[in-house]
Amino acid sequence: MMADVAILGASGYTGAELVRLIATHPGMRVAALAADRRAGAAMAKVFPHLAHLDLPTLCRIEDIDFSKIDMAFCALPHATTQEVVSVLPRDLKIVDLSADFRLNDPAAYAQWYGRPHGALELQAEAVYGLTEFYREALRSARLIAGTGCNAASGMFPVLPLLAERLIDPDEIVMTLGAGVSGAGRAAKEAMLHAEVSEGFSAYSVSGHRHMAEFSQEFSKVAGRPVEVSFMPHLAPMNRGILTTIHVRGDAPALHAALAARYADEPFVHVTPFGTAPHTRHVRGSNFAHVGVVADRRPGRSYLFCALDNLVKGSSGQAVQNANLALGLPETEGLMAAPLFP
Amino acid sequence: MMADVAILGASGYTGAELVRLIATHPGMRVAALAADRRAGAAMAKVFPHLAHLDLPTLCRIEDIDFSKIDMAFCALPHATTQEVVSVLPRDLKIVDLSADFRLNDPAAYAQWYGRPHGALELQAEAVYGLTEFYREALRSARLIAGTGCNAASGMFPVLPLLAERLIDPDEIVMTLGAGVSGAGRAAKEAMLHAEVSEGFSAYSVSGHRHMAEFSQEFSKVAGRPVEVSFMPHLAPMNRGILTTIHVRGDAPALHAALAARYADEPFVHVTPFGTAPHTRHVRGSNFAHVGVVADRRPGRSYLFCALDNLVKGSSGQAVQNANLALGLPETEGLMAAPLFP
Amino acid sequence: MMADVAILGASGYTGAELVRLIATHPGMRVAALAADRRAGAAMAKVFPHLAHLDLPTLCRIEDIDFSKIDMAFCALPHATTQEVVSVLPRDLKIVDLSADFRLNDPAAYAQWYGRPHGALELQAEAVYGLTEFYREALRSARLIAGTGCNAASGMFPVLPLLAERLIDPDEIVMTLGAGVSGAGRAAKEAMLHAEVSEGFSAYSVSGHRHMAEFSQEFSKVAGRPVEVSFMPHLAPMNRGILTTIHVRGDAPALHAALAARYADEPFVHVTPFGTAPHTRHVRGSNFAHVGVVADRRPGRSYLFCALDNLVKGSSGQAVQNANLALGLPETEGLMAAPLFP
Amino acid sequence: MMADVAILGASGYTGAELVRLIATHPGMRVAALAADRRAGAAMAKVFPHLAHLDLPTLCRIEDIDFSKIDMAFCALPHATTQEVVSVLPRDLKIVDLSADFRLNDPAAYAQWYGRPHGALELQAEAVYGLTEFYREALRSARLIAGTGCNAASGMFPVLPLLAERLIDPDEIVMTLGAGVSGAGRAAKEAMLHAEVSEGFSAYSVSGHRHMAEFSQEFSKVAGRPVEVSFMPHLAPMNRGILTTIHVRGDAPALHAALAARYADEPFVHVTPFGTAPHTRHVRGSNFAHVGVVADRRPGRSYLFCALDNLVKGSSGQAVQNANLALGLPETEGLMAAPLFP
Repeated sequence: MMADVAILGASGYTGAELVRLIATHPGMRVAALAADRRAGAAMAKVFPHLAHLDLPTLCRIEDIDFSKIDMAFCALPHATTQEVVSVLPRDLKIVDLSADFRLNDPAAYAQWYGRPHGALELQAEAVYGLTEFYREALRSARLIAGTGCNAASGMFPVLPLLAERLIDPDEIVMTLGAGVSGAGRAAKEAMLHAEVSEGFSAYSVSGHRHMAEFSQEFSKVAGRPVEVSFMPHLAPMNRGILTTIHVRGDAPALHAALAARYADEPFVHVTPFGTAPHTRHVRGSNFAHVGVVADRRPGRSYLFCALDNLVKGSSGQAVQNANLALGLPETEGLMAAPLFP
Repeated sequence: MMADVAILGASGYTGAELVRLIATHPGMRVAALAADRRAGAAMAKVFPHLAHLDLPTLCRIEDIDFSKIDMAFCALPHATTQEVVSVLPRDLKIVDLSADFRLNDPAAYAQWYGRPHGALELQAEAVYGLTEFYREALRSARLIAGTGCNAASGMFPVLPLLAERLIDPDEIVMTLGAGVSGAGRAAKEAMLHAEVSEGFSAYSVSGHRHMAEFSQEFSKVAGRPVEVSFMPHLAPMNRGILTTIHVRGDAPALHAALAARYADEPFVHVTPFGTAPHTRHVRGSNFAHVGVVADRRPGRSYLFCALDNLVKGSSGQAVQNANLALGLPETEGLMAAPLFP
Repeated sequence: MMADVAILGASGYTGAELVRLIATHPGMRVAALAADRRAGAAMAKVFPHLAHLDLPTLCRIEDIDFSKIDMAFCALPHATTQEVVSVLPRDLKIVDLSADFRLNDPAAYAQWYGRPHGALELQAEAVYGLTEFYREALRSARLIAGTGCNAASGMFPVLPLLAERLIDPDEIVMTLGAGVSGAGRAAKEAMLHAEVSEGFSAYSVSGHRHMAEFSQEFSKVAGRPVEVSFMPHLAPMNRGILTTIHVRGDAPALHAALAARYADEPFVHVTPFGTAPHTRHVRGSNFAHVGVVADRRPGRSYLFCALDNLVKGSSGQAVQNANLALGLPETEGLMAAPLFP
Repeated sequence: MMADVAILGASGYTGAELVRLIATHPGMRVAALAADRRAGAAMAKVFPHLAHLDLPTLCRIEDIDFSKIDMAFCALPHATTQEVVSVLPRDLKIVDLSADFRLNDPAAYAQWYGRPHGALELQAEAVYGLTEFYREALRSARLIAGTGCNAASGMFPVLPLLAERLIDPDEIVMTLGAGVSGAGRAAKEAMLHAEVSEGFSAYSVSGHRHMAEFSQEFSKVAGRPVEVSFMPHLAPMNRGILTTIHVRGDAPALHAALAARYADEPFVHVTPFGTAPHTRHVRGSNFAHVGVVADRRPGRSYLFCALDNLVKGSSGQAVQNANLALGLPETEGLMAAPLFP
């Protein structure tokens, strides 16, 4: 079987990353590429690094014959996504990379995104795309809501420990350093090379939207409301997130629990006890590296997770979920090793 | 008056930075430059960016006639510094940039630096170089111990709040992102461009030595033992430290206290409430920017401090302290604005 | 005397760089800052790295009382500059950083800038701002046309050699690597960190406008028409230009001529024969480093020039010229050493 | 067939890159990894980005049973390579990534490498590894000499044009910008992040060794001695080479010739006439992008070539050649798309 896929929003970084991953995927084929503002352009013009591929010309979404599409990836901006998905065929399999279907609670959506949700029936149907925790539901999902990239990075180390009651849910202090590609390709002064390189700074300091995902997923697994402190930082690099989490819990026990939890996971690797992962060791790949280090103060520990925001944090995760939903082997097309240096 | 200064350890980054700052300082003149391994070389050969200056040739420390020197800056490696200072004239004014004289407690020194201190009588004499908190003692100091660069960055926001009992001393969780120049100019694989750029990672994960300075200074001002959790990170940039500190305390009150404390300080600037400083806004300058942001969880706050590790974190701080010790205006030679972008 | 200066176009990089340089200039004071789109904003909001300075609020150009201004710096976009300058008082001293008054020949202007010049009488009055070659004219100039940053970098090594007939005017092949700040602060996709970092590419491949300046100045000094081949490249850095020029000529003779020509120049430094300068050795300073290396093929040589595009290439050059026009010492406010690393 | 390969010199960047490429290669398997200084270490310790792979422990070369090896990749330093290869079995297939077997002329080797060649009989046997020009010889080669990475980048655009007599062999002026990984993983001051980032500079200014490869290959195809002018530059990036070449020739004709020459090559892509390739569009891939732009001066043109020095410039080229020598499809394991951004 060779699945025909459509990528909606192909002129952004996550759209291009989907093309990159699918280019050598033995079970998927790019059948349509939509990007409204660039409709009519060759993909090689928008992304010259894909010039060697034989790709369809960029088109408008309405120009796609979805009856011939086995899977649609939506790499569209937040808010417009729900409008687009609302008019797609109701039996079309969809992996959405936006934030539109991540939050089950309409009130939480409205609070964090500043507007009421416009497609609540679709929201009810969506399965949260953190593969390692929703694998079975994803196999039969029609609409898959990809996680926030920062959210994924925070959840891999924390979720198993909350589930096993090994850390104090009220004392999770999370910080991270992330690369610029998470902000997308839109031209913004704050994302210029001259504004980003050779510097380090916090962003979204009054509250990053991925906190809503933490609240939702952490509370679910802890069986009680969980709020975390979370402060993201922008590092002068293109790809990668390293999340550093200060928790109350016994470091060796935490490491043992994580090592056991992820022993059979193909993409989540736990580094040796006392070591912290680097973003550069997962660059360009679908792997996430998780580490545990003891704080010098007894009873406290540091958890870490490094992943590539464009791969395991979005497009790679999307392909992994699409593999499940299409009945393909989960790791198909995703085993390329990280690019270092 | 024009003070003649010697710089011991002139072939490293902090040594070169001293030369840079003193080059346009109206009250100091570089009279001697020592760098044992490079003795005999022209400074322009070791640091071509200083080629326009008329500088003495690099020499050995023992070749300097200290009777003609008004102030010596020691920019030497840890441990060897105490040996060198031990044999310098006892009436020579010294600003030391190493870690050798920062810790008052010999046991703490031995614990963190892995060897007994070799010059305890000099240690007893040394004044800690955090100018804004030891200004009067520094005016009459003979031996000044420059602070750790990370330590300075953590102390500016925390010290006033501990002193005023506005934050919980047991719940300080500090993280930072720092540039590579703090690691010096020694050739190490881990500091290669290919190993550092396009990535973000934690370092000294089992306990960074600047924690000893936090314990010492925080305990002193709090009047009780204070230990903090501290996790430093390496960001792919050359200069700058941004420290992010999660504390228990009321954000508006913390901001008001810091704004009041630093209102008259020439080099410490408090950014508007709810904003976080950027390292790029202090690059190359002696300024430190301090900010306060409320956590979304009530009763918790984030403190920030950005400074340039080679200036306010070491060589600029050293010149500021030397100004005091030499009876010069404190800001002399240090008012150059940051270099952005 | 303390000259009151106005900066028109203060929200761009060259405008901010003028403020940075003038902040510690003993003979100039920032009396007005204009930036139409940001009028009413505090400069500290637009450029937080200048927050420690007591600066006037950004205003509109028409709000400035030019009778109180001794010197206006125009850091405005090309084309709009000529409109603005046309309505300024005719006795106001002006240093313009745009391209509007660089080309003496109206036909050349129209050819390269795609429109007829709108203020030919001003053009006739303008003095080209390459200080080291127009110093006497600049002392009495009313309107000074700052050079292109790339143009300055190419002219320092070439002009003296053409003047002395030491190189073949028909065989000048020039290439360069430049940082992104030369493209300004406007938000453009091509200048995003994710598009620029970790890569190297040519730009303006069909002909860069600074070629018109080369033609004009090189022809003037050679006494015959001179055209060069010129290909600029974008390097992933914020500041700096390194120009590499392949010429026909005897390397030792070329080096000797350049060393002699620049021996008394305060800002142009010739590196030892056989060495090439680095942009990092002039970063943030008004210095230019010039070098000469022999090609392995006899009778051919490489010339190099490194400078900081925002300083010696624009704002520093502007201050140097303003010093001359105001009767101040030429080096005033410009002797700060480069920032390395 | 699954070929068992040994990688000698697995602790350097090209060694790790071979492992990365072979990790998902359907026809090769890593059977032995040698790195004398790190013998006994796990590859995951030396290169944590490869931690997910099941790899042999690093060993000494003499510990490998070469009777079980189908192909050895030598990623060893220059000079020691010839000693190592001299004692390997004479029927072992070898792809060498060093410079040791690139130059047919012993005198040229001695001149450029400063010592007589130590294995002239092996040199006589070696086939030069520029796949697109030596494909048939490579199919039956026993010892393959990988090209210099800069050399490959210069040859792709120039060789076909010299062969067709479309450019003047005496007027080739070549410059390039290259990333740091070409310098390897050895700890050198000049390769530190603080020395490389935010700057641009020329290197090997008195003559880069890859000039010897240009002389050899260009002379061969031109049927007469050809020397070029060549000046390499270090750009602050990890991967990539962009070569810019000024030639005498008619741009449209040159573009047409190159487009025809590479029309059927899987890895060499010619960009549209008048455009120049970017290194970021080939990053991490085995593709090379070639472009042609007209100089504004009639009869002169610019040629460009962008490739990833660690892939098409060394390890990817090595796998491509190994595919040929092992009778595998030439593109096997090499079709991964570039990583952008």
